Amino acid sequence: MRSAVVVGTGLIGTSIALALRGRGLVPHLIDADPAAARLAEDLGAGVVGAPRAPVDLAVIAVPPRHVAAVLRQQQLQGLAHDFTDVASVKERTQQEAAALGCDLTRFVGGHPMAGREQSGPLAARAELFRDRPWVLTPGGDAHGRAVGRATRLAELCGARPVVMDPRRHDRAVALVSHAPHVVASALAARLLRGDASELGLSGQGVRDATRIAAGDPELWTDILSANAAAVVDVLTDFAGELNTVAQALRDLADGPPEARPAARGHLNTVLVRGVQGRGRLPGTSTGGVRLSGAAAGA
Amino acid sequence: MRSAVVVGTGLIGTSIALALRGRGLVPHLIDADPAAARLAEDLGAGVVGAPRAPVDLAVIAVPPRHVAAVLRQQQLQGLAHDFTDVASVKERTQQEAAALGCDLTRFVGGHPMAGREQSGPLAARAELFRDRPWVLTPGGDAHGRAVGRATRLAELCGARPVVMDPRRHDRAVALVSHAPHVVASALAARLLRGDASELGLSGQGVRDATRIAAGDPELWTDILSANAAAVVDVLTDFAGELNTVAQALRDLADGPPEARPAARGHLNTVLVRGVQGRGRLPGTSTGGVRLSGAAAGA
Repeated sequence: MRSAVVVGTGLIGTSIALALRGRGLVPHLIDADPAAARLAEDLGAGVVGAPRAPVDLAVIAVPPRHVAAVLRQQQLQGLAHDFTDVASVKERTQQEAAALGCDLTRFVGGHPMAGREQSGPLAARAELFRDRPWVLTPGGDAHGRAVGRATRLAELCGARPVVMDPRRHDRAVALVSHAPHVVASALAARLLRGDASELGLSGQGVRDATRIAAGDPELWTDILSANAAAVVDVLTDFAGELNTVAQALRDLADGPPEARPAARGHLNTVLVRGVQGRGRLPGTSTGGVRLSGAAAGA
Repeated sequence: MRSAVVVGTGLIGTSIALALRGRGLVPHLIDADPAAARLAEDLGAGVVGAPRAPVDLAVIAVPPRHVAAVLRQQQLQGLAHDFTDVASVKERTQQEAAALGCDLTRFVGGHPMAGREQSGPLAARAELFRDRPWVLTPGGDAHGRAVGRATRLAELCGARPVVMDPRRHDRAVALVSHAPHVVASALAARLLRGDASELGLSGQGVRDATRIAAGDPELWTDILSANAAAVVDVLTDFAGELNTVAQALRDLADGPPEARPAARGHLNTVLVRGVQGRGRLPGTSTGGVRLSGAAAGA
């Protein structure tokens, strides 16, 4: 892959462009907001404007609900030979692109598993994707050249390409990203009802538990809307676990003494399952806490 | 305060003892498990064994449900002139201590707002409490000398002493610590149903959102049991926020097209409230994400 264009110079698009610049490519930069494209150029991400001749790969880095329409438009204009995107939900986009009559032989869906709470080109970093998974979801019609170029893009950004079926991807991200976002948002929303002295007791625990809730609500409304069924499935299971705990706590607060041992047991079971589930996350063998000082030496 | 004894050399007790050692005191160390006390001594936290004469302050650092009984026993034995504890729930302990006939003029409840996912003396650190709130919940009978010594303990550990009513403390920690723990545990428990390729897409978001779920299930069963009513109150509100999102997602997945704009609106509202609630946490003005490099300079 020797030439590329990035359509949409937000956080992800600009980060990709910066990463490509670091590998010697000079991407073209296009954004519906000319100021955003110029800002990305000022940050050293490439050159503003459409290429004169089709480039090897166009990276559609626009909000999820616009991907299919932008793909269709840019394919009609001959912006590039092959196309990929970066949206967090893959099946819906694939369906929309098919419905709009896009050339699916030249399109491979992509999802770099990286992000930040900030958005826009100023938050972009060339190293955003380093050692992160970058999921590719080629449809049945996709040509090998398009798959190869999307894969090369992920590699040039320092990411680990992973090929998955679009539906399977969407179920996976519902579990490890979208449902956690909803849970963090609902938890953070409850903080609005605390007063300053209560919130003054906050520690790193609640800060970490709600960190992702700081993400852009408009973008996340899009993402969650596009993956609604899979997210609901995870949330339904989650609500079941939560309800087990709530009922146990009600029994412990108000129930008869003879109900308490069973209630403690139900409570403990969910907490143990939490430790086990947490331990299944890659790279959490020590529970995510680094030992230091005397503890590490002992 | 010139002399102290720490009863219970787990994470918190040993960390307090290490902090006192750093300020020139040599605490006595007692634990129901003699090996734990010896380990704390080996780590430089003090000297194993009860003092021959009463010390100024005894720090009861045993699991929450044992605090009142240990306080009663150690008051009868004349271990110290004044007493404090470190349990995460204050009202229940105060009630239990009164019911057992403890001398409440010489007891001031305390709760250093710090912890780690690991437990035991090996995880202890002298700096664990530095710049953290340390809540003191003196009952109406507490003498000024006891309040002063408990306050001094917090200061010697580098913490910020905060005086609160026990019930108010319990409601505050339900909001900023206990309910978030339950939510993180239920979310982490759901991860048990994901397969390795799904969990392989996990990023820092879900790791942060579930970090506190790695905490000791036995300790947390105790804590949540002792603060059940306040935690249920927070979880009930949280479940309401969550249910709003789940219903909106169901409408977006399966509902009629005319229901979608309202559903998107409900979803967006919770996400916006999440950003606002998150922004109320101390020290999160940038959403907890540090800008760096080009972004920070711009």
